[in-house]
Amino acid sequence: MNGYPSVIQGLIDRFRRLPGVGPKSAERYALHLLRQPQEEVTAFIAQLAAVRDRIGRCGNCGMVSDGTRCGICGDARRDRTVLCVVAEMPDLLAIERTGEFHGLYHILDGLLAPIEGVGPEQLRIQELVERIGQRGSAAAGQQGIREIIFAFDPTIEGETTVNYLAQQLADTDIRLTRLARGLPVGGDLEYADPITLSDALSGRRTITTPTTVHSR
Amino acid sequence: MNGYPSVIQGLIDRFRRLPGVGPKSAERYALHLLRQPQEEVTAFIAQLAAVRDRIGRCGNCGMVSDGTRCGICGDARRDRTVLCVVAEMPDLLAIERTGEFHGLYHILDGLLAPIEGVGPEQLRIQELVERIGQRGSAAAGQQGIREIIFAFDPTIEGETTVNYLAQQLADTDIRLTRLARGLPVGGDLEYADPITLSDALSGRRTITTPTTVHSR
Repeated sequence: MNGYPSVIQGLIDRFRRLPGVGPKSAERYALHLLRQPQEEVTAFIAQLAAVRDRIGRCGNCGMVSDGTRCGICGDARRDRTVLCVVAEMPDLLAIERTGEFHGLYHILDGLLAPIEGVGPEQLRIQELVERIGQRGSAAAGQQGIREIIFAFDPTIEGETTVNYLAQQLADTDIRLTRLARGLPVGGDLEYADPITLSDALSGRRTITTPTTVHSR
Repeated sequence: MNGYPSVIQGLIDRFRRLPGVGPKSAERYALHLLRQPQEEVTAFIAQLAAVRDRIGRCGNCGMVSDGTRCGICGDARRDRTVLCVVAEMPDLLAIERTGEFHGLYHILDGLLAPIEGVGPEQLRIQELVERIGQRGSAAAGQQGIREIIFAFDPTIEGETTVNYLAQQLADTDIRLTRLARGLPVGGDLEYADPITLSDALSGRRTITTPTTVHSR
């Protein structure tokens, strides 16, 4: 016997296409399902079919949605003048969990990584530019986008993407911002890397006492 | 937005049930599938359904099979007097890849691990005992099992399982063996742990020259 029956090898190959799954993990997943009662596999199939048939992406921000507009874009209470650009859906959910952001989002589907072959065409950058253009050209009196927050990983790819997008949007009068960098809560100053510490220094904030009126 | 639509969360939960898959991996797998063309998800579903509908386990050895008997048990050229007992299917395939074993197999579905709640009832030990009994009670002249090779991981669980099975089979006249332990090919004697080196010493083999007749 040179290996598994072809049907099982086919399932192993399917699992291997998932991101970060190697040959041993794929084999383990497939063998695990083989040991389950048939109803378990049927439930897995039903869930995949439900996702395939009922889930799409929001035409506006790119978030997964069971309608044409996601819950955020369809929420009239959200502030339509602030747009937060993120790389991936989990980033959006992480920001939502803070409860601090009340604007809209735009998901890029990744960050620029020229070495890995990820250029502007692979990302939802054209959609972002069009989205801003639409709002910019709106009749006077309608709210346009006032600020775009770039909320990317603090990595080379994140920086590259911020720089590229800032160039693309240079001729708009939209305020472009990005997340603050500095010491993470619970971090250890002694072990902070020099770049983070340098960011924390240059981005230092004035300490306001309760009697002082807040100002940036 | 507090999270993904429930259909997606359901798929993430399904992936989480696979062995060794944590919440972040499960999320990544589900989002990856969401980004694929629908045909990809359909192909995944078809593969799962094929495995569910067409694959069972060999009633003899426990290997996955697309019939009631697997290719090995159904192969008349295999030596039915030697039985190799393994913990899992990948172990069987690893031994098959050596091309050195021509007997039959028995898959236990694990190793005894009392602390983790894996006792004899959780394993295919009863099936093994019955299988040996059947052949042992065969009419005189029919080939019975002469040797059982225990091919388990060289771990505490493996040792425990060997000991338990050896007790269970003590009143048969079947030769019980286990895989040799010693230095792995390409290993470094200097860095071998004391137990492995001790095993390699006690299991040392006589060096035979080409003119000498092989003997154990």
